[in-house]
Amino acid sequence: MNDLLTTAFSPDGFRQQGHALIDLLANHLERAQSGEHNTLNYVPPADMLAHWQADFAQVTPADPIALWADMLRYSNHLHNPRFMGHQVSAPLPLAALTSVLTSILNNGQAVYEMGMTGNAQERIVTNWLCGKLGYGPESGGLLTSGGTLANLTALLTARAVAGGSDVWLDGTTNRLAIMVSEEAHYCVDRAARIMGLGTEGIIKIPTNDRFQMRTELLETALDAALNNGLTVFAVIGSACSTSTGSYDNLTEIANFCERHSLWFHVDGAHGGVAALSNTYRPLVRGIERADSVVVDFHKMMMIPALVTGVFYRRDDDAFRTFQQKAQYLWADASAKDWFNSGKRAFECTKIMLSAKVYTVLRTYGEAIFVQHVEQLYDLARAFAQHVREQPGFELAVEPESNIVCFRYVGNETDPAQLNALNNAIRERILTDGRFYIVQTNLRGHVWLRVSIMNSLTTLEHLTEMLVMVRECAEDMAV
Amino acid sequence: MNDLLTTAFSPDGFRQQGHALIDLLANHLERAQSGEHNTLNYVPPADMLAHWQADFAQVTPADPIALWADMLRYSNHLHNPRFMGHQVSAPLPLAALTSVLTSILNNGQAVYEMGMTGNAQERIVTNWLCGKLGYGPESGGLLTSGGTLANLTALLTARAVAGGSDVWLDGTTNRLAIMVSEEAHYCVDRAARIMGLGTEGIIKIPTNDRFQMRTELLETALDAALNNGLTVFAVIGSACSTSTGSYDNLTEIANFCERHSLWFHVDGAHGGVAALSNTYRPLVRGIERADSVVVDFHKMMMIPALVTGVFYRRDDDAFRTFQQKAQYLWADASAKDWFNSGKRAFECTKIMLSAKVYTVLRTYGEAIFVQHVEQLYDLARAFAQHVREQPGFELAVEPESNIVCFRYVGNETDPAQLNALNNAIRERILTDGRFYIVQTNLRGHVWLRVSIMNSLTTLEHLTEMLVMVRECAEDMAV
Repeated sequence: MNDLLTTAFSPDGFRQQGHALIDLLANHLERAQSGEHNTLNYVPPADMLAHWQADFAQVTPADPIALWADMLRYSNHLHNPRFMGHQVSAPLPLAALTSVLTSILNNGQAVYEMGMTGNAQERIVTNWLCGKLGYGPESGGLLTSGGTLANLTALLTARAVAGGSDVWLDGTTNRLAIMVSEEAHYCVDRAARIMGLGTEGIIKIPTNDRFQMRTELLETALDAALNNGLTVFAVIGSACSTSTGSYDNLTEIANFCERHSLWFHVDGAHGGVAALSNTYRPLVRGIERADSVVVDFHKMMMIPALVTGVFYRRDDDAFRTFQQKAQYLWADASAKDWFNSGKRAFECTKIMLSAKVYTVLRTYGEAIFVQHVEQLYDLARAFAQHVREQPGFELAVEPESNIVCFRYVGNETDPAQLNALNNAIRERILTDGRFYIVQTNLRGHVWLRVSIMNSLTTLEHLTEMLVMVRECAEDMAV
Repeated sequence: MNDLLTTAFSPDGFRQQGHALIDLLANHLERAQSGEHNTLNYVPPADMLAHWQADFAQVTPADPIALWADMLRYSNHLHNPRFMGHQVSAPLPLAALTSVLTSILNNGQAVYEMGMTGNAQERIVTNWLCGKLGYGPESGGLLTSGGTLANLTALLTARAVAGGSDVWLDGTTNRLAIMVSEEAHYCVDRAARIMGLGTEGIIKIPTNDRFQMRTELLETALDAALNNGLTVFAVIGSACSTSTGSYDNLTEIANFCERHSLWFHVDGAHGGVAALSNTYRPLVRGIERADSVVVDFHKMMMIPALVTGVFYRRDDDAFRTFQQKAQYLWADASAKDWFNSGKRAFECTKIMLSAKVYTVLRTYGEAIFVQHVEQLYDLARAFAQHVREQPGFELAVEPESNIVCFRYVGNETDPAQLNALNNAIRERILTDGRFYIVQTNLRGHVWLRVSIMNSLTTLEHLTEMLVMVRECAEDMAV
């Protein structure tokens, strides 16, 4: 081995760089959590690219500690309590630390012998959550790399079980379709189009004034689809939807699916976690009747991305998703063995996704998840109440989860002006950097949107943000 | 915030646990690299599950350091030079450390403003590799979560550009097909079946005695497909194949694709890295003419999984893969902006995949990749020479990469007996634990298989492994 490789693999080098990195990150956490600094230091794309291009062009090697510090500087600081933007967690430090363990090990676990611990822990973690969802002993699950992939995986299982033909072997022979709320996450649409369903095969069910699927329209929509020659094989419920955090009525969808022998899938990437809380469990009533459920551990369970679970009411269904042999991997490709996870999961190199969840569960217990979700959901309700009390503001809808959509209206009544005003407010807040909020578009109207993802965020931070929104608006009106 | 959450988010707790973890892992690296311990301590699936179930059932919270040590014990030790099993790297310690930085940050980068550094560094890293592949200034790439997803992404682009109809909008309206070597990785088959092509739509081209696609059969196969009413839209070359590490003749496939206006995709997950080496570059001659190429950074570039690049000869093609709007993400969904990577990549929560590659490149330069691949490819050739010189052994094929398939034959001539013998040898080596090798099945014959993935592995380790194979065989023959 030559000198460069010897140096790079030196355990002592790892030890020194590792300790320096831990200190850098501990200091970063302190600073971010203090909330005194910005949530982000916005730089436009071209300038950011130029910054890193200049760095990349340097002839002298980087000191990794200085490089990492620079990367921190131009990243978003989710541990800052004023970060209330996208639905990604401010991850638990313990879970983030576990990343370095799994990265050093780099055990793929598609095959049992390459990932003994990973496969066993995955079984335990998924069985635990199956129980929380209300599933019985025949249930089971697997972990995969993100919510989009998890929803695709579940829809592939649905196609195999309820699609009316064996598409895996015979290819697409009939016009397949799914039914889903118009407010569902775009990845459901994406999964269906990957499978070749096209626009016609994605039957969008309108939502009510609370942005929930109007389940009373399902029968008519199904009749129309059948008359049109489509084979509907699945209905997808959102728990919750992305833009507004609204929960579909899962019981009604379950009834409908049972009546028509359709696969019932729940995209619970964000809000499936409500099943863990006695207080918020009613939001997902009926989830235990779903054939499959997706839950992101990297959203409401404070695990760094990507770790998503796909859960099946009947574990055996999971073996129908992908039916393949790979001589160099499995001696018997048809055996339904829980411990070769590549048979049921999409990835061939499947990393130790369970390790972070297992470590957190064993160190803090499930109570940490329960307290987190209850605190965030409670806080969203309190913030909504506060918004309602402020003159010049309005709420899009009463929040059901920790997502709140609101806007500044002032005395303005023209819809186009209101949209422009709220877009401008959002832009100003982004470039200011103290707060991070996002926006969404609901039925043509622009709304400001917060996802409260951080346990450190309090009502004071939220009201402070609202003051800043008002100041931006009044400043621009002058 | 209640006490449990306060404790869990304490920067001081992170600092203490982090330093302890770094020491645990540094000690682990020392021990693994010394090669004195086992590569794995094999435990059967049911026993491993029972072990972790007993741990999970404990009432007292875990000490995470003790828990992590236990997880190390029952994992595979890829940094042990006697580990020569699956195609996953013994990752660079610096790259593994970067994982904790990206995990703490947890910046999704589908949207520019959530991942400024990640998007800019991804652009730089992918442009760098585009140049190495021989692509021109119109090229571009993106990073995604693994080779299976990368191949699926490229085939979706191929379908959109060369599929003859807009499947994304109109659904599957014609019988689509791809052409690929029978020795290609199973994920290409998987991707095609996800898209609804079925068995008929995956035209397997036989291989020659070096397990390379017989490109002279492509014309006939295409004629037969067209006569059968299929629309062939892509040909996939393997660089290299999984079982034997053989490189398809990419120039011949490029010529064929150009003649028939088909999309030319190269699965270079393992061996695309040869493009970095002056010595081994001839193996991938013609790759610069591919419309898309996939390269895993977690195979031959020592980055922890998953980090895979999809590279396009024309960057604009990437924007045709997924055509969607998501109001809460992008103001203008149709703009071809490099900096909102969720428009071109599968994932919505797309983590900072580029950070590890960028850190390694800036600290060690690309020389570290070049030296690594050349050392491993050289070593495989030396090992093959050694196998040829040993009585009682035979090689499946002269190795082109760092993958070598061989078997013990002794005086046995019966094919079934030889298969049983080599299976038994492999099983015994696995449970012994000093070495880790795998096996594969080529045209009905069982072969032992090594992928030399670790810079610390030397010819001495490989010859020592061969001695053990002989001892196992002779022991069983008694």
